Amino acid sequence: MNGRYKLRMSALPTDLPEPGTQLLSTLRQEALAAPDSGIVEVMNYGRERPGMIPLWAGEGDLPTPGFICEAAARSLAAGETFYTWQRGIPPLREALARYHQHLYGRDFSAERFFVTGSGMQAIQIAIAAVAGTGDEVVIPTPAWPNCAAATGLAGATAVHVPMHFTDNAGWRLDIDELLAATGEKTKAIFLNSPSNPTGWTATREELQAILDFARKRQLWIIADEVYNRFFFAGERAPSFYDIARDDDPILFVNTFSKNWAMTGWRVGWIGAPPALGRVLENLIQYSTSGVAVFMQRAATVAVDEGEPFIAEQVERARQSRDVICGALQSSPRTRFTWPDGAFYLFFSIKGEEETGKLGLRLVDEANVGVAPGTAFGAAGEAFMRLCFARKPEDMAEAGRQLANWLAR
Amino acid sequence: MNGRYKLRMSALPTDLPEPGTQLLSTLRQEALAAPDSGIVEVMNYGRERPGMIPLWAGEGDLPTPGFICEAAARSLAAGETFYTWQRGIPPLREALARYHQHLYGRDFSAERFFVTGSGMQAIQIAIAAVAGTGDEVVIPTPAWPNCAAATGLAGATAVHVPMHFTDNAGWRLDIDELLAATGEKTKAIFLNSPSNPTGWTATREELQAILDFARKRQLWIIADEVYNRFFFAGERAPSFYDIARDDDPILFVNTFSKNWAMTGWRVGWIGAPPALGRVLENLIQYSTSGVAVFMQRAATVAVDEGEPFIAEQVERARQSRDVICGALQSSPRTRFTWPDGAFYLFFSIKGEEETGKLGLRLVDEANVGVAPGTAFGAAGEAFMRLCFARKPEDMAEAGRQLANWLAR
Repeated sequence: MNGRYKLRMSALPTDLPEPGTQLLSTLRQEALAAPDSGIVEVMNYGRERPGMIPLWAGEGDLPTPGFICEAAARSLAAGETFYTWQRGIPPLREALARYHQHLYGRDFSAERFFVTGSGMQAIQIAIAAVAGTGDEVVIPTPAWPNCAAATGLAGATAVHVPMHFTDNAGWRLDIDELLAATGEKTKAIFLNSPSNPTGWTATREELQAILDFARKRQLWIIADEVYNRFFFAGERAPSFYDIARDDDPILFVNTFSKNWAMTGWRVGWIGAPPALGRVLENLIQYSTSGVAVFMQRAATVAVDEGEPFIAEQVERARQSRDVICGALQSSPRTRFTWPDGAFYLFFSIKGEEETGKLGLRLVDEANVGVAPGTAFGAAGEAFMRLCFARKPEDMAEAGRQLANWLAR
Repeated sequence: MNGRYKLRMSALPTDLPEPGTQLLSTLRQEALAAPDSGIVEVMNYGRERPGMIPLWAGEGDLPTPGFICEAAARSLAAGETFYTWQRGIPPLREALARYHQHLYGRDFSAERFFVTGSGMQAIQIAIAAVAGTGDEVVIPTPAWPNCAAATGLAGATAVHVPMHFTDNAGWRLDIDELLAATGEKTKAIFLNSPSNPTGWTATREELQAILDFARKRQLWIIADEVYNRFFFAGERAPSFYDIARDDDPILFVNTFSKNWAMTGWRVGWIGAPPALGRVLENLIQYSTSGVAVFMQRAATVAVDEGEPFIAEQVERARQSRDVICGALQSSPRTRFTWPDGAFYLFFSIKGEEETGKLGLRLVDEANVGVAPGTAFGAAGEAFMRLCFARKPEDMAEAGRQLANWLAR
């Protein structure tokens, strides 16, 4: 049988190395139909350009702080390499309770918290807990595309509710439209606030209206408040935790990626009514069966000792936001509002509506990597997303290059 | 709102802290119905007993070797904490190609290999690729329960084909019965060889018969050959790789857990026709979005430099098998065959058919932790599973305690 496996790894594993059409036809339809990430396309296109400023991904330029990495290394050296609690090690769940207590000013039970193998897995598990074939999940757009994709893979349908952009008011979600999009098949509303990619942040009143509706209709809310620390109009963004009861139908999905610069680690958590413990434990058991203890030791240290790092990162993001927004504002061709939350600038360029190709052109012509709005669903197609979680000097350089390109 | 979250972490997070019945009734039926692991129950019962010899889990007593842990620590210290390739970093995929080449004596393409967040996730993704609501997956039993549970969570139905145990021939899978259990709805046959928990190992002829059938009927085979190095009747167990073509409909699921004592790490891989690359990449993207680079660096070193460790571990398991089988054979009350593969002894005790409770009693009465056969599905209910991947001295002590208990 020698010589059968001739294919070698190509630099960019993006395309089908061979047709295999018959083989593919026997796959599950939902798996075959899962969309490619529109962000990954431009990343793969520009990844290795010299001097490129990569602003396409939702990731900063800082590696994980040393004190966090060292906690993992210590745990590894101590031989903590065995199976552990499916829900997460008790010290991390208790640290998460303390973290929430600090952030929201009231008590939390460690029983609410479930450690997951990334924020993405928190979303996948939250969806799997509430929605399957024939069900619907309502999602305002523009949105990070992975939630709708995970909904589709669960066999359910993502129902999109386009937000509205005006030059005066920026991005706005019409809550009546959101609630009107729910129906008999709706199992959950997915709300990401502060929003990736728009920076839109729900007010407490908007959260209350959605929660009241969810309680009345027995719908779940999947609350993605991953960027709640990256908020530039106050201490932190308004949260469902400000108004929710312990047993409200909310699944909070979160991640260590952004606050603690741990994108590559793939560790996240779910906050949920403790009554769901058995169900969530089983969903973890039958997907990845927990998270490495040594990763959880690092996450525990991050939560307990990471506040100065978060404060520094948020202030840096604020400066970088000001720099890039200032630079792009100077061009009469751009349209955007300064984002109040998250770390993205979502902007459009007059005369450049074909954003799918624009990302590739900006790699070639401005040496700046931004993600096309087409990746974020309805109402965002004409925009581009740029991540400003980098040092202000980089953002100044990116701003110069983009301004020059705009002025050509 | 102070004082709402009064519950504190209990030592064993096993039960519902509150009824929450109404809340649970709004969950997805499949999530609610996912079975608890019958192994976890006895683990939680006996976990903290002094002097307990824990043989319930599929895990050895050795921590991950230092050279593997150190590779992770080096990568962390070098700041490899960012997002990476969804399919796995090229050096690990290339190392896996070399590993398979070494093991099966022919060339493999790195394009075949997809790094996953555990062997369990490899199974979950393999199922999600081929089966959903209304579909069936055929699984011989006794079997590790997580495969059937993951099938159920995918909305599909696990169709069990009971194996046969006789004192003379040990465990036997009737291939005709296996194939006859497939029907119009069948999308895949899940075959675990060497088997957890029975140690049964398919012959090359049996694998060929299953492959011929799968080719003809356009069914997928999900091949769980995780224990193929732990084989005591030859160099390694027969494998579908001995007979398969590059484009055969086989999804190989595997893990770093057993060969390299990395159970707690949660890293595994899928071997698949390269034509499935896009689909598998998307399934990874929308579940955990890849595995930490520093874990993959460790896995790369494991694959490239781990052969002496594997040889030592397999020889140790063989000695421990001989010790425990010898000890239990001395009792007229036990029934089992010496397993040819994997690292479990699956045995029954005359007069003790109620194995669900027997695991708990053996904790109390013999201070040995074994898993009840009821956890492994049809045909195994009267048996107990014991993991012998521990040092021979421990197995001798466990053997003494069990022999004393049997002789009471």
